[in-house]
Amino acid sequence: MKLKDLGEFNFINRISKSIRASSQVVKGIGDDAAVLKYTKDKHLLFTTDMIIEGKHFYKSAKAELVGKKSLSCNISDIAAMGGVPKFAVISVGFPGSLDLKYADKLYKGIRKVANSFKVDLVGGDTVNSGKIIINIALIGEVEKKNLVLRSGAKEDDAIFITGNIGGSIKFKHLNFTPRIKEARFLVNNFKINSMTDISDGLLADLGHILDESYKGAIICEKTIPVSRNASGFDSAVRDGEDFELVFTLPWPQADRLEKTWPFTTRLSRIGRIINRRKGFSIVNKSGKSKKINPTGFTHF
Amino acid sequence: MKLKDLGEFNFINRISKSIRASSQVVKGIGDDAAVLKYTKDKHLLFTTDMIIEGKHFYKSAKAELVGKKSLSCNISDIAAMGGVPKFAVISVGFPGSLDLKYADKLYKGIRKVANSFKVDLVGGDTVNSGKIIINIALIGEVEKKNLVLRSGAKEDDAIFITGNIGGSIKFKHLNFTPRIKEARFLVNNFKINSMTDISDGLLADLGHILDESYKGAIICEKTIPVSRNASGFDSAVRDGEDFELVFTLPWPQADRLEKTWPFTTRLSRIGRIINRRKGFSIVNKSGKSKKINPTGFTHF
Repeated sequence: MKLKDLGEFNFINRISKSIRASSQVVKGIGDDAAVLKYTKDKHLLFTTDMIIEGKHFYKSAKAELVGKKSLSCNISDIAAMGGVPKFAVISVGFPGSLDLKYADKLYKGIRKVANSFKVDLVGGDTVNSGKIIINIALIGEVEKKNLVLRSGAKEDDAIFITGNIGGSIKFKHLNFTPRIKEARFLVNNFKINSMTDISDGLLADLGHILDESYKGAIICEKTIPVSRNASGFDSAVRDGEDFELVFTLPWPQADRLEKTWPFTTRLSRIGRIINRRKGFSIVNKSGKSKKINPTGFTHF
Repeated sequence: MKLKDLGEFNFINRISKSIRASSQVVKGIGDDAAVLKYTKDKHLLFTTDMIIEGKHFYKSAKAELVGKKSLSCNISDIAAMGGVPKFAVISVGFPGSLDLKYADKLYKGIRKVANSFKVDLVGGDTVNSGKIIINIALIGEVEKKNLVLRSGAKEDDAIFITGNIGGSIKFKHLNFTPRIKEARFLVNNFKINSMTDISDGLLADLGHILDESYKGAIICEKTIPVSRNASGFDSAVRDGEDFELVFTLPWPQADRLEKTWPFTTRLSRIGRIINRRKGFSIVNKSGKSKKINPTGFTHF
């Protein structure tokens, strides 16, 4: 059997099952970042992302943007847990024939993001490879009271997303701002029951929250803001790499959230968490309800 | 200018110069692992290593050994700081056409090493790539009093190495035991002034200690144990990926170390730290002293 026949998510499930964790692990594989015991009031967060030329970006893309993406997608994982990013190590695979200017610009992009989010770049590894590869691992921290998992959604929670959805492949996937300040505002001022970042597509990532929380959901097409770069609603909700947040909080807090939201980043209430038995469905523009099969982007 | 014209170490120096670190970073780029502030008595350690098919291993190598190597080389970095490994995240790039059995065996190798060193595997990333790529990032910890840097070598320190040197390419680079228990014995019982693991070759890695400590050294050919897999002494001291330890401690402690060493792993006193002005030289078997140019394996 080949990996592509099994599929990425089945493969990850297969691996995860064989791995046990010590009591120092609060949450291991299966969320945006691992959660590790740290101090009396705080947890450590730990995440990693690999991007490869020809898969996550093309050689023709601006090196500085590739560098920005490589760190930003990790920071987005920390945002999704309610935390703040702290320390990064960077592994790069470069062809020996790579122009030094390209490498310098790529690191410039990483440094810009690091400076803007106060991330210390503390180490790395450099290897020779045919294609450009960048792997960043990031340590963050979060106050115990502010930690948000995918698994905490409750019935009658309101479902919100930040930003516009879809069409990220055209440009945004290389040039986005991880939603740290939005996430920190949320966890500091509201009871955020569940959250994840939108990397596999809205339906797939909301699907992860529903699976981990053992809940259902009903969402409403007309409330979901689609990017002008998307080729229609149906693809927008399945497009990957939006790097926006999808989160849930108790319905009674939703009005206050909308009234006090201080950012220019768009905020949209797109639906409600319901009983698992009622499934996952969407109400389209003509008011008809339809079951959702929440598959998104898969790597194999 | 191309990367290969500049060389790996010059490139890393170039990047490092442009990076500043906050006060939470005890030691950033330039040692085996980064050292980060943690608790009253302990520091966090943070390291990462990337290995790629065709560069660090061939597809014909046993998948389980490739998995073992991918985690063991990170653990070796933590050993070199005097610490213990704790939490790992694993990024893999696999071709979709890869046989599931290969992937399973690779993870089996990682799990075996993780279990044997009590490392929790807490997360990762899975991407599609043409060649097999494995990047592991590892968090460790070390008591502040046990931390060893490359930069602490002192004049008249004795220089020791563990194991035999050279010829690792034949087999050992895929199947070695990181020297955690040896390193922990050393830091718990002796004043280890400097230490690093031998990944670029004995001369290059001892050279790193000398540069970071601003010291010289004299080493003695007849005291350096060469592996039977090496093709002679001159190549053995430049071969990479031994994953042994080279360390220094005050000369008066050297006899006690040799007498109390409790392991079957070989221990060899190979020389002495001297004044920087006296340089780095080796006494060959006929008693002649020769200056060393400490270059080792470089990736570009």
